[in-house]
Amino acid sequence: MPIAGEVAIIGSAVTDFGALHDRGYLDLVAEAGFGAVADAGLSMEEIEAAWLATAEPQTAGLVGDSGAAVAEALRFSPRPVTRVSNFCTSGMEAVRAGAMAIAAGEHDVVLAIGAEKMRDVTPRGSLVSKTAEDSHPLLAKGRTAPGQFALLANRYLETYGYERSDLAAVAVKNHGNASRNPHAQFGSQLTMAQVIDAPVVAEPLGLYDCTPTSDGGAAVVLTSREWAEAHADHYAVIEGIGLAVTGGYFSNFFDESRDYLGFASTREAAKQAYRQAGVTEPRRELDLVECHDCFTITEIVNTEDLGIAEPGEGVRLLQSGATAIDGEIPVNVSGGLQACGHPVGATGVRMVAEVVRQVTGRGGDRQVEGARRGLAHTLGGPGVIACVMVIGAGGET
Amino acid sequence: MPIAGEVAIIGSAVTDFGALHDRGYLDLVAEAGFGAVADAGLSMEEIEAAWLATAEPQTAGLVGDSGAAVAEALRFSPRPVTRVSNFCTSGMEAVRAGAMAIAAGEHDVVLAIGAEKMRDVTPRGSLVSKTAEDSHPLLAKGRTAPGQFALLANRYLETYGYERSDLAAVAVKNHGNASRNPHAQFGSQLTMAQVIDAPVVAEPLGLYDCTPTSDGGAAVVLTSREWAEAHADHYAVIEGIGLAVTGGYFSNFFDESRDYLGFASTREAAKQAYRQAGVTEPRRELDLVECHDCFTITEIVNTEDLGIAEPGEGVRLLQSGATAIDGEIPVNVSGGLQACGHPVGATGVRMVAEVVRQVTGRGGDRQVEGARRGLAHTLGGPGVIACVMVIGAGGET
Repeated sequence: MPIAGEVAIIGSAVTDFGALHDRGYLDLVAEAGFGAVADAGLSMEEIEAAWLATAEPQTAGLVGDSGAAVAEALRFSPRPVTRVSNFCTSGMEAVRAGAMAIAAGEHDVVLAIGAEKMRDVTPRGSLVSKTAEDSHPLLAKGRTAPGQFALLANRYLETYGYERSDLAAVAVKNHGNASRNPHAQFGSQLTMAQVIDAPVVAEPLGLYDCTPTSDGGAAVVLTSREWAEAHADHYAVIEGIGLAVTGGYFSNFFDESRDYLGFASTREAAKQAYRQAGVTEPRRELDLVECHDCFTITEIVNTEDLGIAEPGEGVRLLQSGATAIDGEIPVNVSGGLQACGHPVGATGVRMVAEVVRQVTGRGGDRQVEGARRGLAHTLGGPGVIACVMVIGAGGET
Repeated sequence: MPIAGEVAIIGSAVTDFGALHDRGYLDLVAEAGFGAVADAGLSMEEIEAAWLATAEPQTAGLVGDSGAAVAEALRFSPRPVTRVSNFCTSGMEAVRAGAMAIAAGEHDVVLAIGAEKMRDVTPRGSLVSKTAEDSHPLLAKGRTAPGQFALLANRYLETYGYERSDLAAVAVKNHGNASRNPHAQFGSQLTMAQVIDAPVVAEPLGLYDCTPTSDGGAAVVLTSREWAEAHADHYAVIEGIGLAVTGGYFSNFFDESRDYLGFASTREAAKQAYRQAGVTEPRRELDLVECHDCFTITEIVNTEDLGIAEPGEGVRLLQSGATAIDGEIPVNVSGGLQACGHPVGATGVRMVAEVVRQVTGRGGDRQVEGARRGLAHTLGGPGVIACVMVIGAGGET
């Protein structure tokens, strides 16, 4: 059977995100994994296989470089755990891999976990300096993430005639949203002045335009729609899933069309997911969006690439209040990467968990009223990979 | 549909294995990938998705730490490439992931690639020293692979009363087999004296008891049995697939039964694969075996764990000549890890490619006469993960 319409998510859990110096990598894996299984009303013995997303295990002494490395923490022997890795899309890759196994009928109930431990430093220094030393092909040339996305921001502002403050409004919205999310790394209401006056990281992006560096974990439990209908108290269904890779490490930045105003990967992944889900007017047909706001500019171009705003209109969508938590199409009600933080492997799983909770009416203090269908989106690497999932409420619609 | 009996392999390619200082990581990915697609009679445009196995991308400047990183070399935009990683079983994990996608019906034709670039050294030193510096949880404690497998070898020889020369016979057999394999890293006929008198690496294991460190790539093309029947000139079918993880980084070495004479992971994975394939007497029902001979002792215990020899009888099976290329059940006719070399991510894919070639009568100079069904097996990490695939000839049987 296909994934779309046939694979369900019946449990989820997200750990605290932040600088968690009291918890190791395996603590995060276990807390998320056992939490999601409990949320599904199951025990770990009932899970048949698992997929693990961790993008940069070298930041945690290489624990997490394989699926096997977490089997003991999950009490999983002799069942399989497989690691997947694809830059910042790793977390949604774990969900996709689990969904493939369900759709293939190889397993009845499986677990997808994402975890990353990024705040510890090694005796030789920080993550970035260490990775650069190891001759990372981009970092070794000084192409850090803030520097790359600053190029996009400058071009976007210049092309469409917007201001630096138009970016800052994303941070104000998302940090405010995170005040309702107890697991978020940050969560205080920022002012525009605080965002604009913050230290510059890469012009025009300041400290609050950038996602922080974070530790954290998240997990979801997957099964078939049929199994969920028969056994689950609450479940959501993957209505569409798209994954697109539009370049590699050494490709020109962004897009073959070379407009440098968005990401072909997101547009292609969204096209696939919308086709499967039967979504033709995403702004009208989706009730909320969790998208990859690694920088403020990214959320704005994401809304355009996802077809929620026309090209160049992402800022106006934001200004209209449509993406606020009580707006027409709330974006990043969780606080997003901006304020939740971004433990890379965990992020995509956290987003899926957020959308699942929202469409099943379990969104807590940040519940989007009447949400029945949402979208999760991650963007990875230098913008060359994106995954989009459309997730709808299970049961009667 | 399930994987077993329904997923076919229609193309394969293996690059040279060895110290390939004239080829970079992406060269190996491209040579293997395009080679397998050509062997299937297809062009890269016809491949819908790909999975990449690379176990230790930090040895190649982190190129290969994501699927996206190889998309450009494969001219794959905008289609997905996903990296999987699970110690030495990574290669077979890529094949398993591709098989899941076919079985789910998400794609018609996909590619599984394994590649590893291990012979280059960074400005700061070799792979092993660098990884140990990065606080690898095992290597930082001095638990290198030769040291761990030497413990197994000593216990095995002591328990069953065998001699060091009984191990050496594995190296003599496999290096001899590799003389028929033009892609192998080594391939000269060794004498028992050469193996026994070689420098000791970890008592009782000498230089020729150990797989070398290698660069290399391999790839296979997967589709459904139905698609293969209609379109392929030659194909094999995955008749059974088992994957078992029996511990993690910090578990006790080997097996919960604590006999330290074999690997529970292999026994469990074989049980799964045999059940699916309907194999009840593997020695009689299999025509060849490619198994994970990372050390000479490993091949011996593998034959026991795979049910080809009784416990303690692996040496006698070898001595009988049954595992020779013209024996009753040839083991590692390719030369195995011993003589092919062991570019970690590539190894499992190479084994699958070898079995596919053999059972479709395309085994070249080392063709096992009348081979119709074979087995591929990889063992990963400190013995805690194993994958077993039973692969049979497609078409009329």
